[in-house]
Amino acid sequence: MTDLTIKRLNASQSDFDSALAKLLAWDDSVDHQVNESVRHILHEVKTRGDRAVLEFTEKFDRLSVGSVAELEMDNARLQQSLKAIPEDQRVALEQAAERVRDYHERQNQKSWQYEDADGTVLGQKVTPLDRAGLYVPGGKAAYPSSVLMNAIPAKVAGVGEVIMVVPTPDGVVNGMVLAAAAIAGVDRVFTIGGAQAVGALAYGTDTIPSVDKIVGPGNIFVATAKREVFGVVGIDMIAGPSEILVISDGKTDPDWIAMDLFSQAEHDEQAQSILISPDGAFLDAVEASIKRLLPTMERADIIRTSMADRAALIQVSDLKEAADVSNRVAPEHLELSVEDPEAMLEDIRHAGAIFMGRYTAEALGDYCAGPNHVLPTSGTARFSSPLGVYDFQKRSSLIGFSAVGADRMGRVASVLARGEGLTAHARSAEYRIKGGES
Amino acid sequence: MTDLTIKRLNASQSDFDSALAKLLAWDDSVDHQVNESVRHILHEVKTRGDRAVLEFTEKFDRLSVGSVAELEMDNARLQQSLKAIPEDQRVALEQAAERVRDYHERQNQKSWQYEDADGTVLGQKVTPLDRAGLYVPGGKAAYPSSVLMNAIPAKVAGVGEVIMVVPTPDGVVNGMVLAAAAIAGVDRVFTIGGAQAVGALAYGTDTIPSVDKIVGPGNIFVATAKREVFGVVGIDMIAGPSEILVISDGKTDPDWIAMDLFSQAEHDEQAQSILISPDGAFLDAVEASIKRLLPTMERADIIRTSMADRAALIQVSDLKEAADVSNRVAPEHLELSVEDPEAMLEDIRHAGAIFMGRYTAEALGDYCAGPNHVLPTSGTARFSSPLGVYDFQKRSSLIGFSAVGADRMGRVASVLARGEGLTAHARSAEYRIKGGES
Repeated sequence: MTDLTIKRLNASQSDFDSALAKLLAWDDSVDHQVNESVRHILHEVKTRGDRAVLEFTEKFDRLSVGSVAELEMDNARLQQSLKAIPEDQRVALEQAAERVRDYHERQNQKSWQYEDADGTVLGQKVTPLDRAGLYVPGGKAAYPSSVLMNAIPAKVAGVGEVIMVVPTPDGVVNGMVLAAAAIAGVDRVFTIGGAQAVGALAYGTDTIPSVDKIVGPGNIFVATAKREVFGVVGIDMIAGPSEILVISDGKTDPDWIAMDLFSQAEHDEQAQSILISPDGAFLDAVEASIKRLLPTMERADIIRTSMADRAALIQVSDLKEAADVSNRVAPEHLELSVEDPEAMLEDIRHAGAIFMGRYTAEALGDYCAGPNHVLPTSGTARFSSPLGVYDFQKRSSLIGFSAVGADRMGRVASVLARGEGLTAHARSAEYRIKGGES
Repeated sequence: MTDLTIKRLNASQSDFDSALAKLLAWDDSVDHQVNESVRHILHEVKTRGDRAVLEFTEKFDRLSVGSVAELEMDNARLQQSLKAIPEDQRVALEQAAERVRDYHERQNQKSWQYEDADGTVLGQKVTPLDRAGLYVPGGKAAYPSSVLMNAIPAKVAGVGEVIMVVPTPDGVVNGMVLAAAAIAGVDRVFTIGGAQAVGALAYGTDTIPSVDKIVGPGNIFVATAKREVFGVVGIDMIAGPSEILVISDGKTDPDWIAMDLFSQAEHDEQAQSILISPDGAFLDAVEASIKRLLPTMERADIIRTSMADRAALIQVSDLKEAADVSNRVAPEHLELSVEDPEAMLEDIRHAGAIFMGRYTAEALGDYCAGPNHVLPTSGTARFSSPLGVYDFQKRSSLIGFSAVGADRMGRVASVLARGEGLTAHARSAEYRIKGGES
């Protein structure tokens, strides 16, 4: 048994609101020095292009080459990685990719238009981005699943070119990441990373084309750089630490639930795992499982710190109250480990992904269920969505007035424009009124 | 005739690329002092709530009241404004609102789910935001149309509560803005503004509830505050100066085109108006119209500065090249003042809104065509979309594995998780494999 204290809360305690707020509090204040350093790197890449990219790659990744072109990995190299990895990994990646592609194809949006009684055409034209950049971390946090989850929606959306950047510090390459890039259909790969890679994708250099949007996870330098270039290009969300919230009716094997909580906790020390149940004895049982299983875990140290600092077992009066608490958390991952998860769905208002029923381990969603594993963290599920095909498409409004429509609506626009004191607007509309003269 | 020089470019000139880049260049660098001031205000509002809101409202709007509750305008007051404005304005607002509502209803997204062969359920659940905040500028730039364009999509999306903030410096109230709020169905109105209003909506105070997303235009303080609270709440885009790009085949009345260009230029000195045509004589004719009409304009000074500093007349070889140049600009507003605009549509890749044909003045779109007038500026149409119902809804992924599905996909997840060194993930999936033991 492990010596580990996990926070215990009860929704009926008088200070529950503030205890919950304290549990969820997460300091994402920006480090001033990181900011300065990132701004410097971005400025250099913006003004000196390839030269700056080479210098920073030599400095940070200890990789010395004569030109950025030498840092590009061609498709043959990707295919070679795909052949080189163990067959069970290749098959698993291909099966995962197929399910991810199948799910995301259902997110594809179509253009539409209609004509009103005056013959006026209105509509919405959907177009994919011309070019997307995908950041993939190198080193210890190299996740091939992340390549699939970021690249496939872009390809399904019809993005013209997907450009991946992945640092290879000291020349160390992750074969499974390259294999995933081959399977996902990534168009070009550059082995660069950090803020310099974000800068190169945002501003473009002689060798690296500028993109319209940059997606994918990264360390604090990458996240800060993405925040800085936002506006020049689009970005996906800036992710906080990963979280899971499990609601259980107390009838799932406690070991299963303990392991589900571990699967978040093992990501990093700041990850958050919360279990909510109306069954106090079940919370005890899961706590016992946690203590028994923890010493058997490969990443026990990370899990222990995460569980001690940020986990909680919360008792509620019923499943309805469990849903209420969950809505206040707006978790990234929500497991409904209950008899009838469909019945609970209506009460769930905010969650990145909802895992329904005892068999639906969150880990399945991370890899191969089909839906994306890039999800809103830190309560941002209140207003944002999983990464999807819609993140790689944009809409243009279509407006085509007939002469009749322009006459009729020109009068309305004229009144409103004059009401706002914008007379050029008014006169522009009035020209299109029959016999109109401004 | 006016003494005014408008830039003339030709797509065939050797330095066209750099000339175009220079024309479009827009410095949106953040003012350090504004930043500091905004951070101070946000910190005060976050920590001292209502008291800080009262102090800043007294300081900036010269409005002294005893409690924030006194700054709330109830629905009766809105209805009173609706009765008090001239009838033609009321009717015009109502007609505009109806068309805007009708168009946006077509953007409503539906939840969906499906079952695969293993009995595994996958889907996407769409829910509206609980609460949205709408910033409306007070004083000279008070636009009732902006209230309709921001509030109606939120209401159509099903947002539970739309809270509007609008400063009333020195107690000056804009009746048409309040009337628009009544028509759009805004739920609550507080007469506060500036960074303090953004802070109140983001963090909440005793009197003002926190919202999930803040939308709407504002000055540099408001824009900076929105950028700062992004992450705590969602925000819409940070708008740059307004732009129009007109492509003409040379057969539209030059006065109409001149007035269309003016309708952007009158917004502010930084607004940008660009005309592209293969017909050089037509560019001359429009220039003559501009010079003749300018002295007749109410906002001639603003228009003159905007046209002198940021406008351009660009000659191209044909309409195909016009579309290419337009795609590089990715304009907020694009007018296709040509014989067959539908035929050009396919070549247009990036634009906030596309106005098709000679009768479709951009001004009609600003007020009452139906589509939103909140559009991506400064080339961000390459990767972003008009404000829409989708901005007030978010998606949750649904995953429900059957026992059979968990068994089959658990094996795939296990291989991938072990490949990534995440063994808690692997074991969590393995528990759900038949006879599985971790």
